[in-house]
Amino acid sequence: MKFNRSIVLKRRPRGIPALEDFELRTASLRPLEEAEILLEHLFLSIDPAIRGWMADKKSYLPPIALGEPIRSGTLSRIAESRDPRFPVGTLVQAIAAWEERSIVRGEAIMGEIKRIPGIPLAAHLSVLGGNGLTAYFGLFEIGRPQPGETVVITAAAGGVGMVASQLAKIHGARVIGIAGGEEKKRFLLEDLGLDCAIDYKNEDVNAALKAAAPRGIDVFFDSVGGELLEIGLARLALRGRIVLCGAISQIHEETPPAGPRNYVQLLAKRGRMEGFVTLDYAKRYDEARAILADHIRSGALVHRDEIVSGLEHTPQHFLRLFDGSHRGKLMVQLQPSGEEIDDNDRS
Amino acid sequence: MKFNRSIVLKRRPRGIPALEDFELRTASLRPLEEAEILLEHLFLSIDPAIRGWMADKKSYLPPIALGEPIRSGTLSRIAESRDPRFPVGTLVQAIAAWEERSIVRGEAIMGEIKRIPGIPLAAHLSVLGGNGLTAYFGLFEIGRPQPGETVVITAAAGGVGMVASQLAKIHGARVIGIAGGEEKKRFLLEDLGLDCAIDYKNEDVNAALKAAAPRGIDVFFDSVGGELLEIGLARLALRGRIVLCGAISQIHEETPPAGPRNYVQLLAKRGRMEGFVTLDYAKRYDEARAILADHIRSGALVHRDEIVSGLEHTPQHFLRLFDGSHRGKLMVQLQPSGEEIDDNDRS
Repeated sequence: MKFNRSIVLKRRPRGIPALEDFELRTASLRPLEEAEILLEHLFLSIDPAIRGWMADKKSYLPPIALGEPIRSGTLSRIAESRDPRFPVGTLVQAIAAWEERSIVRGEAIMGEIKRIPGIPLAAHLSVLGGNGLTAYFGLFEIGRPQPGETVVITAAAGGVGMVASQLAKIHGARVIGIAGGEEKKRFLLEDLGLDCAIDYKNEDVNAALKAAAPRGIDVFFDSVGGELLEIGLARLALRGRIVLCGAISQIHEETPPAGPRNYVQLLAKRGRMEGFVTLDYAKRYDEARAILADHIRSGALVHRDEIVSGLEHTPQHFLRLFDGSHRGKLMVQLQPSGEEIDDNDRS
Repeated sequence: MKFNRSIVLKRRPRGIPALEDFELRTASLRPLEEAEILLEHLFLSIDPAIRGWMADKKSYLPPIALGEPIRSGTLSRIAESRDPRFPVGTLVQAIAAWEERSIVRGEAIMGEIKRIPGIPLAAHLSVLGGNGLTAYFGLFEIGRPQPGETVVITAAAGGVGMVASQLAKIHGARVIGIAGGEEKKRFLLEDLGLDCAIDYKNEDVNAALKAAAPRGIDVFFDSVGGELLEIGLARLALRGRIVLCGAISQIHEETPPAGPRNYVQLLAKRGRMEGFVTLDYAKRYDEARAILADHIRSGALVHRDEIVSGLEHTPQHFLRLFDGSHRGKLMVQLQPSGEEIDDNDRS
């Protein structure tokens, strides 16, 4: 009999999550039913969206139930399958959970991973995975920058932000990245080659944006919310667009804080503020991945992943999302094939 | 020599404007310079936007300067002209001021009024003027309702709201109007024929909307802001659109109040919140007016104007915008041709 280790939601976090909100659980794995698929996870994707799913709030996906494994993007191998559309051995990107193996149905599988030579497998979950796809569709479908326009990206050193910044740059926009700390600022300027970077921890963002974008912001790609969003609205150019990608500044709040008090800027500026959910573009993932892969191969799009090994380290790695210490994408690597435990070993 | 009476901005209002913010001034009228036009106003348009222009804030038009006449939409006759594009005698709609006559340049003229038989002249400034055009372009260019969708209009008994409500209804949408008081509610249901009306002064708007639109709001046409906008966001349907037409609930605030705390609803709902300025659609005014006129003639679009006579009553009539007492469009009628004063009469 196979065992499976999972990180489950032990209690709902209040504010910033703590290690005590999670629990490592070992359970036996039941046999598959008709139309089910067994995934063995190779990488878990650590994303801010997970914090949203941990709250008891309705969103585009239901909240994670107490005692259930933490929902997560994964890069997985199909180990068993009772759905003929998904053959054993296929590598896929899925919405599964922080565990070694998950039993899912076909709708959880976001697409086959056609491994691109010369690109590390993990990158298929970051720059070629949810982060890259979110950056791609948010920027081009919602923000729609024109060459020569000014694009501002918040959380620009994060998993989505670093891709969005570079895509905007490749597209011919002037790109200003906002991130916290000298080190991240250097990363944006030197490693990503952005036109300008603002360290929100040590600079007056409004003044810096006024100087860097005197004619205003055409596209404000926002994953942060709060005060940064208000500054973005205040400095929006005529017909500017605000891409709502996330609101990590308020993701921990039980009751959301006051909204952008200057939202009426959208009126005089003929502005647009629009949200999106990457899953809606599933039919176009392959198109976007092909473009992203081209940019990686040409060297125009660089990426940076921070990977730790071992399921048990997942909660700690997740908490790094909220302490401002990471650059690029956080992932956990698993070796499920080494984890098979014989029932007899347990007694 | 001709004299001209104007209502000027004596002091900037704090909060809700008061009569003391205005002053009636009489001055002589200077001769026209090259490219100037003298307008004699027949009707002044009383709109919430004027309150915005009275504040010392940058917007899509500069603030009204202290001591200057109050900027306003007008329905006017060209009395003299040194711009050959605008011949004497033409009736026009213009952005001029609360005064008997204004000297303007061509860019102040929003279009010739081609009087439509059977429709009162004043209606060319309301349902066929700025209000009707704002309702038309806001609804169809920004909100884009589909037949069968649910459209919610705030300030539905106001000059813009009553037109937007009826246009949405004619277009085949289910229309819910929000207004204050039993009398306005009756007006929305009986006179405008809306599907549902909510009296925000006496009803729980969120509960009423939940009952009236259980599948959510597809288009929220908002002229109010504040708490009503938060309810609109909360009850937005998937891919819902919020048309930002105004924010009369906060138009008097020096510092804008907290914004919609649930703006992140736009994210999960893939929603869009977008502002617009009617002036941007100037090239399409004739197209919109022809459609509006057809609906008036067919009886599908009813309108209601509240008109007083005499420039001196303008400030008082304007204040009615903010006490909730009016239904439909407020206007002031002038008789400039009777106001010529000979210089000798003055001495």
